[in-house]
Amino acid sequence: MTYCVGIKLDAGLVFLSDSRTNAGLDAISTFRKMIVYEKPGDRFMVLLSAGNLSISQSVREILQVEKIDNGDRPPITIWNAESLFDAVRVLGSAVRRVYEQDGPSLKAAGVDFNASMIFGGQVKGEAMRLFLVYSAGNFIEATRETPFFQVGESKYGKPILVRAYDPGMSFEEAVKLLMLSFDSTIKANLSVGLPLDIHLYQADSLKTGIVRRIERDDAFYEMISSGWGEALRAAFDRLPAYSLD
Amino acid sequence: MTYCVGIKLDAGLVFLSDSRTNAGLDAISTFRKMIVYEKPGDRFMVLLSAGNLSISQSVREILQVEKIDNGDRPPITIWNAESLFDAVRVLGSAVRRVYEQDGPSLKAAGVDFNASMIFGGQVKGEAMRLFLVYSAGNFIEATRETPFFQVGESKYGKPILVRAYDPGMSFEEAVKLLMLSFDSTIKANLSVGLPLDIHLYQADSLKTGIVRRIERDDAFYEMISSGWGEALRAAFDRLPAYSLD
Repeated sequence: MTYCVGIKLDAGLVFLSDSRTNAGLDAISTFRKMIVYEKPGDRFMVLLSAGNLSISQSVREILQVEKIDNGDRPPITIWNAESLFDAVRVLGSAVRRVYEQDGPSLKAAGVDFNASMIFGGQVKGEAMRLFLVYSAGNFIEATRETPFFQVGESKYGKPILVRAYDPGMSFEEAVKLLMLSFDSTIKANLSVGLPLDIHLYQADSLKTGIVRRIERDDAFYEMISSGWGEALRAAFDRLPAYSLD
Repeated sequence: MTYCVGIKLDAGLVFLSDSRTNAGLDAISTFRKMIVYEKPGDRFMVLLSAGNLSISQSVREILQVEKIDNGDRPPITIWNAESLFDAVRVLGSAVRRVYEQDGPSLKAAGVDFNASMIFGGQVKGEAMRLFLVYSAGNFIEATRETPFFQVGESKYGKPILVRAYDPGMSFEEAVKLLMLSFDSTIKANLSVGLPLDIHLYQADSLKTGIVRRIERDDAFYEMISSGWGEALRAAFDRLPAYSLD
């Protein structure tokens, strides 16, 4: 299983992904689920992927060379797209190409064609954008009302995101928030696991931002995890109990 | 959708269920999902159900008259079972009977035979017990390590249960906990909704305990819901932010 989140802040985009992949609980491996495509000064894009790893890896490879027809003009690629909307169309096309290649065989083997992705970044000339891409290659964009996307095991970690997200928050606060969201997930689903990859993209920088890998023994993560348990208990205790009278 | 929880405390059993049923988001109705079977002084049982409402309702009806073979002795029913284990076997048999009746037609209509239930209570002569029953009529029992069960839309409300549950907590604290767990769920899934039914069964009482229906405008629920948002934010703010240095 997987847990990935992308959120949009005024300050930039924040991406988090776990790195655990499993084929049954006895075959668990660590894979990077975050990949960056960039031409510094011109465009910066991050792809986070959940679902079948063979599909995600194929999509990631194909995306680098995928083209979509553009009439009389040169085909559109992620490298020349004039907007992130066009770049995510290229990603949708890559997903569909993998579906054409692998879909029938997967179906014959009783495996769903299951892939969902978060794709965000910025192309010079427009503001940063964040998208959620489905298995069929279709996609939706984050808005002010829906400023974050989760893929994979998303439910356990959603309540804290809904409650504590604020578009004006700093990167430092956002990392704390995503770690807490992740911690709620990992406590409930063993097949999501450390290490975590975090990428902080600064608005309008058009290049790789701050990248961190949070390892199993990370002191900050451990402190946040245990501190949050205590903080929740204390918050719980401070609320009045129900009266049965 | 549905959200039901049953938890086992030293003080007794606590059951909560929402009451919203939907067939698509434009057809939402209110149904009681909690039903009590009792012979005061002899046995007390509660059934909470999630999944297809027609299946749940059929199971609930049939359970009252379902019998399982007991060799030379009279057949076992929920009314004469000598243990809650035997009573839940009768429930499993009722689920299988509904499957035999409706399963093939549901399958032909492309509808899964989808039902999961929480069944708990006490039969005179043994301690109270709590079970989770699956669509196939098989079941598992709550233990010290797994002292609560959820059915329906269970993930959003699990983190707070995991963090704040304590077997020694009072009924009043447990109601607060279940309301918070419910509140996390309702904030994330519109098809779970008030009113809530709550039943507090006191250990060894062998009869209906305290029953409450929490309506849409319940003052305590509203206070808990808004108070929890503030408490979470405050707890979040008290934890140190991640350092990017």
